[in-house]
This record gives sequence, structure tokens and C-alpha cells, in this order.
Amino acid sequence: MNEKMLKLGKNRSAIREIFEFGNKLRAEIGAENVYDFSLGNPYPPAPDCLTETLEKLIKNPAVHAYTSAPGAQSVREAVANSISTRFGLAQPSSLIYMTAGAAASLCSVLSATVACKDDKVVVFAPYFPEYKVFIEATGATVSEVMCNDKFLLDRDNLEKALDKNVVALIINSPNNPTGAVYPKENLQEIFDLLEKKEKEYGHPIIVICDEPYRELVYGDIDVPYIPTMCKNSVVCYSYSKVMSLPGERIGYVAVSPNMDNAYDYFSAVCGAGRSLGYVCAPSLFQFAVAENIDKTSDFTTYANNGKTLYNHLTKLGLDCVNPDGAFYLFVKAPFLNAEEFCEKAKKYNILLVPSTSFGVSGYVRISYCVSEKTVNASLPAFTELMKEYK
Amino acid sequence: MNEKMLKLGKNRSAIREIFEFGNKLRAEIGAENVYDFSLGNPYPPAPDCLTETLEKLIKNPAVHAYTSAPGAQSVREAVANSISTRFGLAQPSSLIYMTAGAAASLCSVLSATVACKDDKVVVFAPYFPEYKVFIEATGATVSEVMCNDKFLLDRDNLEKALDKNVVALIINSPNNPTGAVYPKENLQEIFDLLEKKEKEYGHPIIVICDEPYRELVYGDIDVPYIPTMCKNSVVCYSYSKVMSLPGERIGYVAVSPNMDNAYDYFSAVCGAGRSLGYVCAPSLFQFAVAENIDKTSDFTTYANNGKTLYNHLTKLGLDCVNPDGAFYLFVKAPFLNAEEFCEKAKKYNILLVPSTSFGVSGYVRISYCVSEKTVNASLPAFTELMKEYK
Repeated sequence: MNEKMLKLGKNRSAIREIFEFGNKLRAEIGAENVYDFSLGNPYPPAPDCLTETLEKLIKNPAVHAYTSAPGAQSVREAVANSISTRFGLAQPSSLIYMTAGAAASLCSVLSATVACKDDKVVVFAPYFPEYKVFIEATGATVSEVMCNDKFLLDRDNLEKALDKNVVALIINSPNNPTGAVYPKENLQEIFDLLEKKEKEYGHPIIVICDEPYRELVYGDIDVPYIPTMCKNSVVCYSYSKVMSLPGERIGYVAVSPNMDNAYDYFSAVCGAGRSLGYVCAPSLFQFAVAENIDKTSDFTTYANNGKTLYNHLTKLGLDCVNPDGAFYLFVKAPFLNAEEFCEKAKKYNILLVPSTSFGVSGYVRISYCVSEKTVNASLPAFTELMKEYK
Repeated sequence: MNEKMLKLGKNRSAIREIFEFGNKLRAEIGAENVYDFSLGNPYPPAPDCLTETLEKLIKNPAVHAYTSAPGAQSVREAVANSISTRFGLAQPSSLIYMTAGAAASLCSVLSATVACKDDKVVVFAPYFPEYKVFIEATGATVSEVMCNDKFLLDRDNLEKALDKNVVALIINSPNNPTGAVYPKENLQEIFDLLEKKEKEYGHPIIVICDEPYRELVYGDIDVPYIPTMCKNSVVCYSYSKVMSLPGERIGYVAVSPNMDNAYDYFSAVCGAGRSLGYVCAPSLFQFAVAENIDKTSDFTTYANNGKTLYNHLTKLGLDCVNPDGAFYLFVKAPFLNAEEFCEKAKKYNILLVPSTSFGVSGYVRISYCVSEKTVNASLPAFTELMKEYK
């Protein structure tokens, strides 16, 4: 038996542990009395137009047949056209690989990128904890680079970490867990540095853009499309959040046409998918998202929840990042003791995730993909919780 | 870039190459004039009851949420109950892991089983070519063991291959590409040998049962349920063939409750799924198959096609295995020259796959998951083809 896999299977993620604790609590005191901010399961339903498409598609059982491994050609074209139209980068459909969601996108891309055990992949802390699992599965090492105090990308920290073994970095904007969206200037600093280092080391450094929250932004926020700024880039996308379809496992990999050896790199992504057991992305949902491309769920609840919680918690004296996107609020714990804060919060039936899971200490993540009713009901509980610190 | 993945992505499988040739031919001379026996895409539609369930389920968008990683509890229970009822082995639902189809099942199980580079996994030739890809992805070596001349498992050949580095073997019954179903006595010989070797080497040898064709048998054929005969066994199942849902990627892993350290092994399967990027199996189809458990598509076409082709080809003097299950006919090529036979067949618009892809030479595989009309129309073409050998 493989001991590494045994350990991975036994040590559930901290987020899952808290969620299970929540299930116990819900059974005891009723779901309406538990303020569970632990998980990132989208709250609003899938768009109605998507449900209508599903109703139509399932009348034809041919929709359940294998598509070709990188996806049905019509679906790849719909995705490529959407990218070309929205971002002004001519994206060929032949560089689109449909996947079973964001995790599948990342695993295929990482496995295509990492060539040997000495390779390193940079992640910016705080970061989604499964990055570590996916990177280490390829045999590479995770190199953690701290964001700056505004949770933006830190050029100087990155420069220190950028030795010749770094083959890739993951950029996740809008960000889980901070809700930050990296502005153009911030990204440009990073890409200028990468270009310099690529010349110095004589090999590409692939920018892996993990973008499941791309359309989930609040107000007049621009999310730069990284392949228009950086040639050696590949986008990992998922429809989980934007169409509220997390269980259906549908997303894509888009290789930038400007990448060095883009078509070889694309072949390596296909090969990686094959060796991971991804035969074709779930077919019904390939066709369903293609027919509803650029449609999204209604994000009003997220916008309201973010505002309500940010206003209330800052009024209580807590230091929060004002989220530009995603559905997370990243909050500095009193005395920078996140574990204690989470434990105290449990007494008030508030479930939070300590930032240790995300590679930094002293913060908690509030995942506000819950009903507005739950958020409003939680406010007095937060007030009571903060009295413990008076 | 990872060169191994590049190679895997560039070298398409021989089966896919032939299928693409078929696409070109269809465009030139019309689909009705091409007798394409290359691919294993199921022919009959999904059962009507499944479509009705889908219609009902999609009315509730909650069906698209994440389930827990090993699958929704109600779905795992439905699968476990079906196994317990049909095979008389008390299967706990806590040892059921829902997967994104057979490839995902195999990759998760192999990755949970293989611990180091010296490990070997036995496959019985002829075998499904992707086994090699999946096994080598774990770092293990493929050890090929020839079947006997009736394409049953060969105990003596296996004994020669069973050194102390063998950690697992894959048994695929009903078999792709031969259509053989291994009878109880044939399996018992193998399991007796394994038990002896497990004692000798002091470690378990896991029997991985790849069973996507389990219910697809003709006449009064018994397909023994291996976990009732062999304790260190794990079943990899898929609903692709039995419910004609190959594109939807839905199946399961069932760890035998009698396995040494069954629950640890199950955890390792979960850990492996996690590191391969399998977050949860597609949720809509988890619920859909659970509500239609033990239902199948109508296999009449397959039964008729198998009979028609077997009768016609044997009458033409060809030596075929009479298939007990699956939807393949394995035919000895004249003068054991499979490549020449496939090339000559192309002249008559018949597309066959040479057995070299399956680890043996001298045969061709006919995949008869096509309409009865196509099969009947192909008979004169086979007659003409065989005139070339007169």
C-alpha cells in the first residue's frame, strides 16, 4: 500500500473537519442556529437558462457518448470564441482542453509542466491548501512566497524564491482565501521579473492562472486576463462557482497561443490527462456550459453578504481585507491567534477556518456563500464573540 | 515540460487513429458505407428510466452541489446494497468510493496500491492498452502474462511472473478485447496460487477486478464476483457500458470487506483520488445511477451482432473466440498477419483494430457496438475481403 496516499486519505483537510463538526452541531441545535462559514459550496442556484438547456439535451441520449479526449469540437470552439471576444486574445480552439473541473485542470497542467524531482512550483501565501497536494503529486516541491501586507503579489519576496529550479507559479485571482484581485500594475511587476529570470535561466517559467472566481467580482473591478500580459501562461478554469455547478466537474485548460511551443505544451496536457485517468470531461455538462457560455448565477447574495459582514466586523474592531471578488472574507484574528479565535467562535456556533491551512498564521477565512438570512442572524453572535476580547 | 506526458499526448492510441481514419472515410463515401468496428462507444441509448430520473433531478439545482469526496452517502448505500443483494457478500457502504468512471477507478486504485518503483502489476495479455499508461503513471512496471489459447487465465504463465515485486494484478472479465468470461474454476486456480505466494512473500497481492462489462453477457453465463473468492480484491466498476453513459464518467471502487486492512486501503484510495484531482464524482449522475441501480440498456443488438458476425466469419473460415460477454469479437488473422488483414479490410471499408495494441500479435478486434443494419451490410464486404485469401 502507498503510505503517502494513506496519509492523504486519513488526514482530512482542516476545512472538511470543521464542516463535519458543523454537521454534528446542526443535528443538535438545528441548522438555522449554526453560522457555518467553513465551506466554499456555491449558494445561489445554477442559472435558469442552464436548467432549460439540460432539459432539452437529455432528450437526446447521444449526448452521453464519449466526446474526443480534449472535449467536443463544438464546445472547444464556444470556449475559445468566448475568450477571444472577451479578452481580445485570439484563442485557437485547438489549445482548449475540457476538464473535469478546476482540480483536474490544475493536476493535468502541473503534471505536464513538472519534468523532474528538482523542479519547484511557487505559490503565493495565503493559498488554497490543495495546491500543495497537487504539486507534490507530480514529485515537485512547493515554494511558498508571502504576499505583501495588502495580500497582493510581492515582487521582492518572489525574486528571492526564483532560483533556476522554479518551473511554474500559480496565480489565483480573484483569490481564495483573501478575496483580493491583483491589479494590472501588480501583475506587470511580476511578469517583468519572470521575463528577466527566464532569460537568465534559459527556460520558461509557466504562469498557471487558477481562475474559478474570474466573473465573481464586486463593483467596477477589472480582472486582467493574464495571457494578454504574459506569454508563457495557461489558464485553469472551472464553471463550479460561476454557474453554481461544483458537483458536476466541468472546466477547461486554455493554453496561451503565445507560449513557447504552445502546441507541444498542449499535447503534454493531453498526455497528462490521459495518465491521470481523465478520458473526457463529463459530456452532458460540456454541451450545457457551451450553450450558456458567459452566463452566470445571480451573485447579489454574495455582494450583500460581503458588504454586511465587512461593515459589521470592522465596526467590531476587526481588521479585514475588503474583498474585490470571490466569496471569502479574510480577517485578522485578535492577538493574531487564529486557533483561539476559531475555538471561541464555536461557542457562538460560528464556524471559521484558521489561516494556518492556507500557509499563513493569525487570520481566519469566512466563506460567505450562505443565505443573507444566515449572515444577518450571525451578526449578534459575532458581537457576543468580540465581547470576549473586551 | 514533461517529455513523458508530451509523448503520451502526441502518440494517440492506435484505436483512436483508426477512428479518425474512419471519420475521413465517412466524409468521403457516406457513413452508411463505412463498417467501423474500431471503437467501444456503446450503441443502444441509456435506459428510459434513467432519462426520466434526470428530468426529475435537474428540477432541483441542489443536485449540482459538491457531495463528500467519496460520494453522496445515499448513493454509496445504494451501490453497497446492490452488491450485497446480488452477490451475497456483505459490502459496507463505507468501503464504496464513487468515481468519474472506470479509468478514474483504476488510476485511484493503482496509485493507492503501488508503493515504490520496484513494484510490478500483472496484466493478462491480450489486455486493454490504457492499463499500461495507468500502471506506468504510478511508477510501477507492467508485467505481461499470456492467456492460454482459449484466452483464459493461465496459471503456469502467471506463476513464472509472480516474483516478490508483484503487488497487484488486473483481471478484466468479461474481457476487452476477447469477450471471454473467466469461469469459477479458472479463477480459483489463480487465487490458490496467489494465496500461496502471499504467504511465501509475506505481503498481499491485490486483485484489481476491472468490471465495466459485468452485466453484458450472453445466454446463461455466470460472472463470478471475485471478492467472494479472493479476500485481497477490489472492484473497479463503471456505468459507461451497462447504462450507455460513457461520456458522463460515473463508476465506483468497491474495496472487499475481507481485505487485510480494508479500511486503511480504502483511505489510501481516497488519498489517491485526492492527489489525482478527483474532488467528487459528477453529482447529477451519482444520484441518477443510484435511483436506477441494477437497470441496464437493452443489449439485444449486441447479442444479435455477436451471433451474426461469429456465424458469418467462422463460415468464411476465420477462427474466432465465441464471445460470452462484452461487445468484442477477437478473430485470428489469416497467416497471423493482423496488420496486413487490417490494411486489406480497409479496401472494403471495414475498420478493424490489430491485436498488437492489446499485447499479442496475429489477431484483430471487432467492436460490434454498432447497429444491426451496419453489421448486416458489412457481411458481403467480409466475404469479398476473404476472397483475397483464396
